[in-house]
Amino acid sequence: MKVLVFGADGFEDLELFYPLHRLKEEGIDARVVSVSRGTVEGKHGYHVEADLSFDEVDPDEYDALVISGGKGPEIMRLNEYALDIVKHFMTEEKPVAAICHGPQLLISARVLDGRKATCWPGIRDDLIVAGADYRDNEVVVDDNLVTSRHPGDLFAFGRELLGLIKG
Amino acid sequence: MKVLVFGADGFEDLELFYPLHRLKEEGIDARVVSVSRGTVEGKHGYHVEADLSFDEVDPDEYDALVISGGKGPEIMRLNEYALDIVKHFMTEEKPVAAICHGPQLLISARVLDGRKATCWPGIRDDLIVAGADYRDNEVVVDDNLVTSRHPGDLFAFGRELLGLIKG
Amino acid sequence: MKVLVFGADGFEDLELFYPLHRLKEEGIDARVVSVSRGTVEGKHGYHVEADLSFDEVDPDEYDALVISGGKGPEIMRLNEYALDIVKHFMTEEKPVAAICHGPQLLISARVLDGRKATCWPGIRDDLIVAGADYRDNEVVVDDNLVTSRHPGDLFAFGRELLGLIKG
Amino acid sequence: MKVLVFGADGFEDLELFYPLHRLKEEGIDARVVSVSRGTVEGKHGYHVEADLSFDEVDPDEYDALVISGGKGPEIMRLNEYALDIVKHFMTEEKPVAAICHGPQLLISARVLDGRKATCWPGIRDDLIVAGADYRDNEVVVDDNLVTSRHPGDLFAFGRELLGLIKG
Amino acid sequence: MKVLVFGADGFEDLELFYPLHRLKEEGIDARVVSVSRGTVEGKHGYHVEADLSFDEVDPDEYDALVISGGKGPEIMRLNEYALDIVKHFMTEEKPVAAICHGPQLLISARVLDGRKATCWPGIRDDLIVAGADYRDNEVVVDDNLVTSRHPGDLFAFGRELLGLIKG
Amino acid sequence: MKVLVFGADGFEDLELFYPLHRLKEEGIDARVVSVSRGTVEGKHGYHVEADLSFDEVDPDEYDALVISGGKGPEIMRLNEYALDIVKHFMTEEKPVAAICHGPQLLISARVLDGRKATCWPGIRDDLIVAGADYRDNEVVVDDNLVTSRHPGDLFAFGRELLGLIKG
Repeated sequence: MKVLVFGADGFEDLELFYPLHRLKEEGIDARVVSVSRGTVEGKHGYHVEADLSFDEVDPDEYDALVISGGKGPEIMRLNEYALDIVKHFMTEEKPVAAICHGPQLLISARVLDGRKATCWPGIRDDLIVAGADYRDNEVVVDDNLVTSRHPGDLFAFGRELLGLIKG
Repeated sequence: MKVLVFGADGFEDLELFYPLHRLKEEGIDARVVSVSRGTVEGKHGYHVEADLSFDEVDPDEYDALVISGGKGPEIMRLNEYALDIVKHFMTEEKPVAAICHGPQLLISARVLDGRKATCWPGIRDDLIVAGADYRDNEVVVDDNLVTSRHPGDLFAFGRELLGLIKG
Repeated sequence: MKVLVFGADGFEDLELFYPLHRLKEEGIDARVVSVSRGTVEGKHGYHVEADLSFDEVDPDEYDALVISGGKGPEIMRLNEYALDIVKHFMTEEKPVAAICHGPQLLISARVLDGRKATCWPGIRDDLIVAGADYRDNEVVVDDNLVTSRHPGDLFAFGRELLGLIKG
Repeated sequence: MKVLVFGADGFEDLELFYPLHRLKEEGIDARVVSVSRGTVEGKHGYHVEADLSFDEVDPDEYDALVISGGKGPEIMRLNEYALDIVKHFMTEEKPVAAICHGPQLLISARVLDGRKATCWPGIRDDLIVAGADYRDNEVVVDDNLVTSRHPGDLFAFGRELLGLIKG
Repeated sequence: MKVLVFGADGFEDLELFYPLHRLKEEGIDARVVSVSRGTVEGKHGYHVEADLSFDEVDPDEYDALVISGGKGPEIMRLNEYALDIVKHFMTEEKPVAAICHGPQLLISARVLDGRKATCWPGIRDDLIVAGADYRDNEVVVDDNLVTSRHPGDLFAFGRELLGLIKG
Repeated sequence: MKVLVFGADGFEDLELFYPLHRLKEEGIDARVVSVSRGTVEGKHGYHVEADLSFDEVDPDEYDALVISGGKGPEIMRLNEYALDIVKHFMTEEKPVAAICHGPQLLISARVLDGRKATCWPGIRDDLIVAGADYRDNEVVVDDNLVTSRHPGDLFAFGRELLGLIKG
């Protein structure tokens, strides 16, 4: 089992580290991916090493995708390789979990139309305009897609992400 | 001549103060409006006093609207009174100028469809999905609507805003 | 199943939130306890609400104890109620998990003599002087006692903590 | 029309950017000058690129001078080239505009004796001792010299600066 | 022996605490004085309690005066009571020690004319214009007046201050 | 007379600079020692240059040792050369002064058993467990050993340190 965890500078620290450690806790091979390899800094000052850059990823090798929030998504959604990876997972119906501002990549990849989802309230209208069936719940599961609103939802986000992955 | 300047906590400091002082320089009566009256803090630490809360505004009394960027728009776009003011100015075709993340209110007010506009690159796709004709220019003018990308565009933003207001 | 999570001002943010959400993910009733009720601020700026103060806790009602690290332990170890809770769990051989500077409470409670344990390297010698059998591993399990070194060990800390609790 | 804008590390951000964008808005060629070329950081964290160092400037080529405030003036007033530029503009009676701590350069250049001026209140006595006719107004105009007190005066500072330049 | 130590918000932390502890080390009764009683915050984040406000001080009761630097002097020099205290000590030829920006109060009190003194380089010209005989030394002693340039001079500042006080 | 002053990144700024300047005030040759030569940053943002690294020190050449507190001691106590220097001074009964978290090095060097001492309250129990006769006083002197609790005790710490050194 191999999982990609997306994050870029300004990522919401807990939203990256909770799923990262949660997956490792299960013995799952989780890889941090960013615009380039090397150190990435969260908005609260934590650092993480990106194992891979978006253009190095062969999505066929991975089983699931996690997209952290914060300020990172506004950077990552401008990266064509990142969007191609998102499209791959959505098309292949592999597990995709996005939290807070993470769904901004789902908008850019044009994969939200008709899908039940939630997000940070400040971008709620962007999801609705993009065709999503927005819900204000701690976690929303729509087949392979798991979404949450903010770090306070991580317990539910983790539960549904792991539920999907472990089948 | 009376002009509304929208800003909320986390506003991009230059994007609020440049138009505010620029309008005052012309002798125009510019009023800062926010979620509530009182002190509002910018992301770089500047403070401004909100003269009015959104629900106190009678838009018929005002001639133009400026929407600053930063983190404020994600707060302001959740305020129904703020969106009603935006709709009023767009329907009445009075001058509206939005910069950086400011166009997020235009998305939420559903007034961008078919309009030429620009914004902070990180929300570009949200404008496109909302039907805007996105341009990557320092300033875009479409009839009554002026938009810019970031603080480095303020000189052009101010020029076009003042051009519209002074007719 | 009810679990206590100790934290005080300056707590290491991930070390409190990871176990807190991890326990809630399992449907476990986890309560944050501090010097007093109300908001507690982590060293990276996150906030958490303390549900209880140390003097309000009846340890007989709880099944396990987690002690977060950072700067909080130097405050908590001066609270006699906190130390009495620690002694209760160690005497009753219920699960106790401490990370980073968290073991400072174990020293103050005089419960480390002869126990295998790890901690933040900077307080290693304090554990050794207190009679602990110090190990430099990502996680050390000695019967009911789980200890780790720093936030980078949280995946292993969580695995062993949950292993103990779920039996 | 070419204008010099002085700023050094710790410059008051609005006091540099407002006149810089204001001049550019008019199509005026405004150049940022500092102790050396390259990035200069304001006290609120904004960055600006210095186009020129003081020793590279031929003041005969420029039509006006703006001196921003903050902590920069205590650095710039120790630079002999900067003071020579100030003296040139004052001797030639070309427009000079200084705000907040900016007038510290006017003191060091010994050009304030008998001139009406204002400044940040904390250095008021230094201007008076230097022979200035100090006024506590939002803007003071004395022939070619425009001075203001703080960022809240920028609307008036801009109005008088532009008035002088545009004749 | 009783000594006044002047400081206001933004004081240079070492420049207030070094002389304060140094005087207390000798068993001297040192009192912190500010614009008002209560907590004063240094520019590096230290806090000190002001024992007295300027208007409460009877300078006849005190034997010496220390003026700390940083941003405090620009506030203190606007307080007429503070300047009256300075004038008292200079007229009575009791020991006065000022460091860094501290001499700004000496300028405002008009007591520097003809006196040998030093200060933070950024305000050097203000002292010269005020008639001081400026020297660029770690400490300058002119009868009852001791001045230094910055925190790195505190060892010399303390030596000469104590030398004067202990006679 | 030559004295070593220990400090590492995160040192409590006043606790290093007060004794450093105090010793220099007496004309004593005081050298800052750290893990490596070069700039060391205090927790409040002050910088100091380390004259020597621990492994370069020949303790026979020095007459006394000062250990500053803050976060530095958790780093320094992991350095074997630093601990050897501490042991030398304690064995030779030369003056040793440690403040706040500074006594953590005394624990690691195993030199506190049976000695009267004080420290930052948060590590009080570590000293007691290490065999120290803990006292809650502003300064504790036990033959060659001087200890204090926090920066507010520096006046007493300085008095006793200088008393010992000057014999």
